[in-house]
Amino acid sequence: MKKINVALLGFGSLGQSFAKLLLEKKDEIEKIYDTTVNVVAITTKTRGNLVDAWGIDLERVLNNIQETGVIPKNNEMMLQRNSLDVAETVEYDVLIEMTPLELAAGHIATNHVMAALKRGKHVICANKGPIAWHYKEIEALAKENNCQFLFESTVMDGTPVFSIVRDNLKLCKVTEIKGILNSTTNYILQGIEQGKTAKEVIAEGKKRGFIEANPNHDIEGNEAAAKMAALANALMGADITPKDIDFTGIKDITKEKIQEASARGNVVKLICRAFNKDGSVQVKIGPEELSKMDVFATVTGTSTAISITTDLMGTMTIIEQSPEIEQAGYGVFADLLTIIKGM
Amino acid sequence: MKKINVALLGFGSLGQSFAKLLLEKKDEIEKIYDTTVNVVAITTKTRGNLVDAWGIDLERVLNNIQETGVIPKNNEMMLQRNSLDVAETVEYDVLIEMTPLELAAGHIATNHVMAALKRGKHVICANKGPIAWHYKEIEALAKENNCQFLFESTVMDGTPVFSIVRDNLKLCKVTEIKGILNSTTNYILQGIEQGKTAKEVIAEGKKRGFIEANPNHDIEGNEAAAKMAALANALMGADITPKDIDFTGIKDITKEKIQEASARGNVVKLICRAFNKDGSVQVKIGPEELSKMDVFATVTGTSTAISITTDLMGTMTIIEQSPEIEQAGYGVFADLLTIIKGM
Repeated sequence: MKKINVALLGFGSLGQSFAKLLLEKKDEIEKIYDTTVNVVAITTKTRGNLVDAWGIDLERVLNNIQETGVIPKNNEMMLQRNSLDVAETVEYDVLIEMTPLELAAGHIATNHVMAALKRGKHVICANKGPIAWHYKEIEALAKENNCQFLFESTVMDGTPVFSIVRDNLKLCKVTEIKGILNSTTNYILQGIEQGKTAKEVIAEGKKRGFIEANPNHDIEGNEAAAKMAALANALMGADITPKDIDFTGIKDITKEKIQEASARGNVVKLICRAFNKDGSVQVKIGPEELSKMDVFATVTGTSTAISITTDLMGTMTIIEQSPEIEQAGYGVFADLLTIIKGM
Repeated sequence: MKKINVALLGFGSLGQSFAKLLLEKKDEIEKIYDTTVNVVAITTKTRGNLVDAWGIDLERVLNNIQETGVIPKNNEMMLQRNSLDVAETVEYDVLIEMTPLELAAGHIATNHVMAALKRGKHVICANKGPIAWHYKEIEALAKENNCQFLFESTVMDGTPVFSIVRDNLKLCKVTEIKGILNSTTNYILQGIEQGKTAKEVIAEGKKRGFIEANPNHDIEGNEAAAKMAALANALMGADITPKDIDFTGIKDITKEKIQEASARGNVVKLICRAFNKDGSVQVKIGPEELSKMDVFATVTGTSTAISITTDLMGTMTIIEQSPEIEQAGYGVFADLLTIIKGM
């Protein structure tokens, strides 16, 4: 049986849901792919780091976090190593970057990714920063070192968006992308349409765990811009960063505007678009009024949607219906299976 | 450069659209996959057959059909061979079955497919008959002979349905399928909703080329049942034929029923469902009343849609927006690229 050593940078809810999948599917991975997955490092920002070449007991770690909030303290603990040290020195085959998104320029995550690729290691990146801000150089480095660089979970969790174009739309050229990609803003717009104020919806969303403590990056459109830069770079051959994107969030959308739209039989949605214009890829993000008969009008709650138009296959729309954190974990898991299959 | 020899059984609009793609993408296939595709046989029911080990000039054949309606007569022509002879004797690497669907039991196409697999040849099947009626035995034969057996274009043209589960939802178990898979009935229901009679819509659809000369198989639900048997067999591990499916078409749907639904804010759609019940896969097809806010309510014209629910990824909905014949040709083309990649 083959063994694949994996280092996990970041171990929040995404990392934990991925770890649960690894445990749950251990036997199937061994049976179908003739491979054991061995987690040799876990790093966190505030809850300690673990390094163990013999393999970390994920069940113990998950239980400990559940009970105490931190990673178990014991022999393997190597606090002196930060996550970049781990990326640069630990012996692993695949680095999985799951640290929190920094919207400014994605430097920390990018450094992790580049450190691994320079060592000839495969990389799975669940952090959209590197793909939004530094895609071209990372992609070039991955090619140069003959490494896989996968990042399915950065847009629409585990819904195959990048891999559908790669695996299932072979030789198709993506000419247009349209999406509702930020569920926080979509949820807020829906709440306002139902007669609540933005403040009320945000408070409710926070309580239910859909909306982050500080949702400004969602509301202002930064999060959607990072996703669209990632999509445009990876699927349309663009070389842009979020700075190049013309984006407006939903800050200026009032109850009155939404009610006026509703009276016309329409809804307001934050629509992301990428398209070719004058020989380059343009990206626009802003609120649009859609007919209630439009497929995007039916995307509510925490669901997200994307339409991908290609030269050979016309327009295909994919909707992820009411995802939970497990679906993001699956995105990382599917990338890992792709790497295992290719080894 | 590798060379792959391909035999095309059936050369109607699907076969021609596939052949056009082969011509159009010749250089890219050579460049990206280091492979030349050589068509060594084309068979048709009434328009002659061609066999040429040196490779048939597709451009000449397409032009000739356009101008005269038949395949060009010349040296390569071997009228004495029928399509089963070709499947059994011609030297090819991949058989592409594109003969018309026989809804009774799919015998002719199944014989072609089995003949190729027995000889250790890969098979692409654009005909849903074999997958609906004889999936288990064909799949077993393919495994035994270490051959690929692909059939992406049988449901929703080239939209990745089978390949998404195979390639992108690795280790996921499909627990439910829901779809609007027959565009003829969907188009008729939409027309009735707009105030036309079924007869008027059918006449209009025939004129515009959406609806076949004899749409009874669509209206009675047979065509949808063949697709659902294929999906249940290939994606849910079922072992069923269309005979095992509880299906109703749209024959009993009247203008009044649709208008009553409309007054309730609903639409009527022919919904296909497959699900696990009492340890086996059940399939049901029949008209259902849906809220206008339902994503399936937005599927109109010639569009089709499928929701695939899995244990690990929840529910994902894929919509093919207003396909043309080119999209079906792409389904066959994508299967061929999958085989080329794996060779």
